[in-house]
Amino acid sequence: MSTARNKVNEQISAKRSLLCVGLDSDPMKVPGVFRSMSRPVLEFNRSVVRATEQYAVAFKVNTAFYESRGLEGLRDMEETLEFLPSQCLSIADAKRADIGNTSTMYARAFFDHWNFDAITVAPYMGFDSLEPFFDYEEKLIFVLCLTSNPGSSDFEEEPLDRGMPLYLRVLEKVSVWGRNGNAGVVVGATKSSQLSAIRKAAPGLFFLIPGVGAQGGSLQEASLLGVDEHTQSALINVSRGVIYPEGEFASVEAFEEAVAAKAAHLQTEMERVF
Amino acid sequence: MSTARNKVNEQISAKRSLLCVGLDSDPMKVPGVFRSMSRPVLEFNRSVVRATEQYAVAFKVNTAFYESRGLEGLRDMEETLEFLPSQCLSIADAKRADIGNTSTMYARAFFDHWNFDAITVAPYMGFDSLEPFFDYEEKLIFVLCLTSNPGSSDFEEEPLDRGMPLYLRVLEKVSVWGRNGNAGVVVGATKSSQLSAIRKAAPGLFFLIPGVGAQGGSLQEASLLGVDEHTQSALINVSRGVIYPEGEFASVEAFEEAVAAKAAHLQTEMERVF
Repeated sequence: MSTARNKVNEQISAKRSLLCVGLDSDPMKVPGVFRSMSRPVLEFNRSVVRATEQYAVAFKVNTAFYESRGLEGLRDMEETLEFLPSQCLSIADAKRADIGNTSTMYARAFFDHWNFDAITVAPYMGFDSLEPFFDYEEKLIFVLCLTSNPGSSDFEEEPLDRGMPLYLRVLEKVSVWGRNGNAGVVVGATKSSQLSAIRKAAPGLFFLIPGVGAQGGSLQEASLLGVDEHTQSALINVSRGVIYPEGEFASVEAFEEAVAAKAAHLQTEMERVF
Repeated sequence: MSTARNKVNEQISAKRSLLCVGLDSDPMKVPGVFRSMSRPVLEFNRSVVRATEQYAVAFKVNTAFYESRGLEGLRDMEETLEFLPSQCLSIADAKRADIGNTSTMYARAFFDHWNFDAITVAPYMGFDSLEPFFDYEEKLIFVLCLTSNPGSSDFEEEPLDRGMPLYLRVLEKVSVWGRNGNAGVVVGATKSSQLSAIRKAAPGLFFLIPGVGAQGGSLQEASLLGVDEHTQSALINVSRGVIYPEGEFASVEAFEEAVAAKAAHLQTEMERVF
């Protein structure tokens, strides 16, 4: 079985939490107390991790926010990996995929070079674009299925001739393609009416559920509908709702207290499903 | 109109060429003569660009090959941009896309920070995942449509209830979403039976056609079927077929001669469509 999956399942049981903290760290939104530091985003991430690690079972690094600043941003991403707690799952939210020999290079980047435990990938190009990721049996591969954004109606929800929407066909295929339990899917929390059906159709898949908070998804529904009753294999990601608490902070400690309170509240809500 | 599109159209007319050289530069495949240099991939790229710039109208940087080596590889990518000829189109072959606020960050990375003229993006997540790219009216945005790999049959060619395969629905939508001529699509050269129909359905879109050479697509068919008769808006990408000529090279000059010969041959074949 995927060692990444084992690891996060242990955390889920131990912490009675499904919380994945999304490090969508935008230099324009980092609180003032970090701005005078030489590496604001890196120190901001360090504080967020320190404040949330007792409640979180996973950390999701949104690669776009680091790439947007080029090498300097990616250096922040790389050094953030050094202080992510090793018992928690680290996810590269990268949405990559390309023809086989190119996907092999992406898999190398995120699994070998940066040593993430998991990655998000895009399904459009089909099997050979995802196979190089699934070849890493010890990792977890989250394939986009039904996402939380308005554009999900453009293609993901298109009804197919075979009598199901595209996202359910993706779900079917991914269930077959995963190896030793290393397959997962991304299903948005804003899609609560479909979430329960998707969960039932794929009890073996690990679910990554974003869209709670800023995007409008309900935490309660996501927790109740997204968790498989036997394996509890689900993560609920919250990014802006945890890392950007409202208010001004006079010190790093005050910021960390506010972030910890947000994470603690989320964990308490999630605990109900255990 | 997209200034990137104007620029590449001028190059196409001036050079009577559709050649896009793909810099899928793999350190394991770089010829021996570069291996002892301190920056083998960077110097390899410099030679490939020097050898092909009189025949090529565009250069496509496959981001995966640089990401696979982390910051060191991305530094090579960044410095490669400095010597790409400014009259040619520079394409980030990145296949990115995510929810709106995240795609905004990817667009910033490739258009503002690195100043590419064009990018490839993945359509699965729909309009708001692509809009931040289309907002750059002066650039060119190539959306995956029907790709050259075997996995294209998994989802791209799925027949929809509305009576067309998914890739044609993507084509329809992209035709509407582009602004001031800044929309393009990726259609694989291995799909010659569909290429002509796709071309007719979308005369206003710019086509990026990969898959000639190592992937088995025919150059002649791609040139004849992919080019719109009025606007000649197409690029044919060749990566491995140009940058890795067979044989051992005693000097950088000998390597560049071999690469130039490959590019010259391709340009001669392409010239027939003018």
